[in-house]
Amino acid sequence: MLRDGLQNEDRVLSTERKIELVERLAASGLRRIEVSAFVSPRAVPQLADADAVFQGMVRRPGVIYAALVPNLRGMERAVAARADEANLVMSASESHNRANLRMSREASLQAIREAAALAGAAGMRVAASLSCSFGCPFEGEVPGAEILTWCRRLQDDAGIPSISLCDTSGMAYPALVKEVVGSVQDACRGITLALHFHNTRGLGLANVFAGLESGVIRFDGALAGIGGCPYAPGATGNICTADLVHALEVSGFPTGVDLDALIITGKALENFLGHATPGQVMKAGRRLSGPIAPHHAPAG
Amino acid sequence: MLRDGLQNEDRVLSTERKIELVERLAASGLRRIEVSAFVSPRAVPQLADADAVFQGMVRRPGVIYAALVPNLRGMERAVAARADEANLVMSASESHNRANLRMSREASLQAIREAAALAGAAGMRVAASLSCSFGCPFEGEVPGAEILTWCRRLQDDAGIPSISLCDTSGMAYPALVKEVVGSVQDACRGITLALHFHNTRGLGLANVFAGLESGVIRFDGALAGIGGCPYAPGATGNICTADLVHALEVSGFPTGVDLDALIITGKALENFLGHATPGQVMKAGRRLSGPIAPHHAPAG
Repeated sequence: MLRDGLQNEDRVLSTERKIELVERLAASGLRRIEVSAFVSPRAVPQLADADAVFQGMVRRPGVIYAALVPNLRGMERAVAARADEANLVMSASESHNRANLRMSREASLQAIREAAALAGAAGMRVAASLSCSFGCPFEGEVPGAEILTWCRRLQDDAGIPSISLCDTSGMAYPALVKEVVGSVQDACRGITLALHFHNTRGLGLANVFAGLESGVIRFDGALAGIGGCPYAPGATGNICTADLVHALEVSGFPTGVDLDALIITGKALENFLGHATPGQVMKAGRRLSGPIAPHHAPAG
Repeated sequence: MLRDGLQNEDRVLSTERKIELVERLAASGLRRIEVSAFVSPRAVPQLADADAVFQGMVRRPGVIYAALVPNLRGMERAVAARADEANLVMSASESHNRANLRMSREASLQAIREAAALAGAAGMRVAASLSCSFGCPFEGEVPGAEILTWCRRLQDDAGIPSISLCDTSGMAYPALVKEVVGSVQDACRGITLALHFHNTRGLGLANVFAGLESGVIRFDGALAGIGGCPYAPGATGNICTADLVHALEVSGFPTGVDLDALIITGKALENFLGHATPGQVMKAGRRLSGPIAPHHAPAG
């Protein structure tokens, strides 16, 4: 989720920096990287060079280099850039879909269907992200029936094999995660589910564990936990990939990711951006080999 | 846990500010407040005015005003200050006990036994905090048998009715929380357990949910999430009380705490300290009444 992080940064990284980050993330063992987004350069100037990043980066065998694709025009660019996977996006909330994508959910589903057909013809993988799966910043609660309707239609009408349930504005909590994931698993047999959490209210990793208990094994993170919404000061970004990998590894879920490499890449990103990031394990070190911390004051 | 937060701050708040914070915390509905610590003013100058804070604050009926007490001298001060509860502290790790309290665990247990007797004679409640219950910054893993030994001895030898298992350096993770809590519950029938987490590696609230699943309903937090270890740069403090209350409330566990009041008090603390704090809900607002956040960039 390099894409979700960088699109919210004031400082625009050079294409070379972005390529360096993608290559380092792939080298750390991550198997799916959302490299960029094929969106309007006017809307998201931070990602205007998506085509150049895909063209310039050296690809590792076995790594899926994905891109967010909001419409048919983006799909054409994604095909030209030889993205491995198009992440097609719509929202479970009508208000949010209109604010974010400037169209109705119905129009988004139609666009996703056409984009998926285009991807199929090009031999490209597709997945979908369903924004506001745990609440909407405009509408509040999104009824479970709405989530199920749009997941079913993404699977049945648009032929999408994999859906990421996105907690766009950080409204998920563990019991809700279990409820939503369980009902989607029941309603959409054969679907591959991923979970995309923001740590807006501190619950990001708690929600990951709820997802794990529900059988989900795919989670999005952002390098160093960057991101957030430019219109909600103080809101935080995706969960930090290093914190996620650390949490999974200590809990006995091997990830195949080199945590130390990920931490070093996160620190490089901090230098590129010129500010601190929310990543915690980057600061504290891993659980058993972190810096020794003598407590000289009697503390509980 | 005003104590655990303030003892790690560079800026020393005035006694008046501390009294204001304690009174506002009590007014928000918190039922137990660790006001300060009766420790050496040389070791922890931030809390040198513990006696004056207890003397100056207006007490609310029903609220337990606790203090950390590391030794007999501290116990005498706690009795004189009319603290409602003495939080007696030792570590499950020998190295950490010696570093933090300058004595062996055996000597600490003896001191706790004597302090508890003194408290009993004064009609004061006692509890104990067992540091390093989920790992030690010096020794790494602390064997489960060590945790059980010291919990049993606190209960049986020192007559302590309530133990807070403390994740002193942020090494807990959900599966370990369930394992440790379950084994202590089995070994120490009748004990009241509390959990004290630091968010050092982002797992604070995830660990709270693991504790809840194990039947624990008492959790420590620090106002605005302040704290951390002065000797581990970047390490973070206790979990933020407002984030904790928010997580519990949205999950259907009523706390009796006025979250808005807590958030306002947290922001006042930020002003007093002159820096931002790790509290998340303070920035983002509560899940369903936070600021509306339009996403103009297509985002998952």
